[in-house]
Amino acid sequence: MRHFIEQLNLLQNRLLEMGGLVESAVHQSVLAVVERSEELARRVLDNEDRINHLEIEIDEMAIRLLALQQPMAGDLRLLTAAIKINTDLERMGDLAVNIAQRTLTLLHLSPVKPLIDIPRMANLVESMVHKSLDAFVKREPDLARGVLVSDDTVDHLRDSIHEELIAFMQSDPTVIPQAVDLILVARHLERIADHATNIAEDTLFLIKGIDVRHHAEPKL
Amino acid sequence: MRHFIEQLNLLQNRLLEMGGLVESAVHQSVLAVVERSEELARRVLDNEDRINHLEIEIDEMAIRLLALQQPMAGDLRLLTAAIKINTDLERMGDLAVNIAQRTLTLLHLSPVKPLIDIPRMANLVESMVHKSLDAFVKREPDLARGVLVSDDTVDHLRDSIHEELIAFMQSDPTVIPQAVDLILVARHLERIADHATNIAEDTLFLIKGIDVRHHAEPKL
Repeated sequence: MRHFIEQLNLLQNRLLEMGGLVESAVHQSVLAVVERSEELARRVLDNEDRINHLEIEIDEMAIRLLALQQPMAGDLRLLTAAIKINTDLERMGDLAVNIAQRTLTLLHLSPVKPLIDIPRMANLVESMVHKSLDAFVKREPDLARGVLVSDDTVDHLRDSIHEELIAFMQSDPTVIPQAVDLILVARHLERIADHATNIAEDTLFLIKGIDVRHHAEPKL
Repeated sequence: MRHFIEQLNLLQNRLLEMGGLVESAVHQSVLAVVERSEELARRVLDNEDRINHLEIEIDEMAIRLLALQQPMAGDLRLLTAAIKINTDLERMGDLAVNIAQRTLTLLHLSPVKPLIDIPRMANLVESMVHKSLDAFVKREPDLARGVLVSDDTVDHLRDSIHEELIAFMQSDPTVIPQAVDLILVARHLERIADHATNIAEDTLFLIKGIDVRHHAEPKL
């Protein structure tokens, strides 16, 4: 039994390690866009392999624990949550790679405008990623609910970035390719926020056993 | 034991029911774009709830079977695959909803051009969704590998649609908003294909016990 608890802790630590890598990939990918830095973008691309390997390792750990230990109730919820959170983290890593790839295209084009809303959106999304993992580790429902609330703000920011960039393209058609790339960067950020929201929902399910997906959250 | 096998079959049938709903949502959402049909787009939005409820039901069934039956080896792989495939299907349903939402915007704007590559991309993506589920149900590795191969073609189509629409905007800036919407539709389709690819990879893992994620596929 002691062995099983140690294994669960090891699994959680591995998830946190993965979370740290993903957080830093998201941070570097947006910094690469803002600072037009090829070096930072390449660093994100170089780290993709580590994230992908960790995903497979965590998945195998979780499935092995499911198989060998025949866990009940709470531990079972933890293991299925770990499998889902692992998938979400890996997708976030992919999205950071997509942002880094956009940067490599944007480097060869003239800047559209000083970037204000994209870094603001990125800050919010990064804090959602961090909070969702923190909520999971500390089993802290308030932190998780904070992530759900931020998701609406992210959607509004995405829409206002979209509209502003459309207006820029209309007034200066020479910036069309780079403005479309920035619209896609905002979409990638929004999807990263969606994955953080999934982690927060899985965390609430883990803590309370209540399914809050699809806005079915009862008053807690 | 007989009861457990019946429950596994029931779970698979539910996944197939969900797969059918998602396939039809993807089909209708693209048809809505091509035919500029508000009615079809609304039908996709109306069906989202059914898909979301089915996701929760399937998840609960799979976790209950994990908890109660303490399955070993093959059955355990089936249950963890079911949890992952369920998540992928729900995201595909979300993406069909995103495409339907784009349609509702596009209806109010003049058409950019006759749509040829988007319906072609949609056909390919729909066949990938269908094949990935078929591969899962029939445990047929060749079907699953066919899905992995198509994913590259989808990426190429997405890039050529992107470039063509950028050129359209540059020659006629009045179509910028609708061309950006069509670029996003192509992105949504590409992500649906990514989820079909995930299902095919999980199916190969289920059949062979070999992890083919992240292009780590050995010669089979």
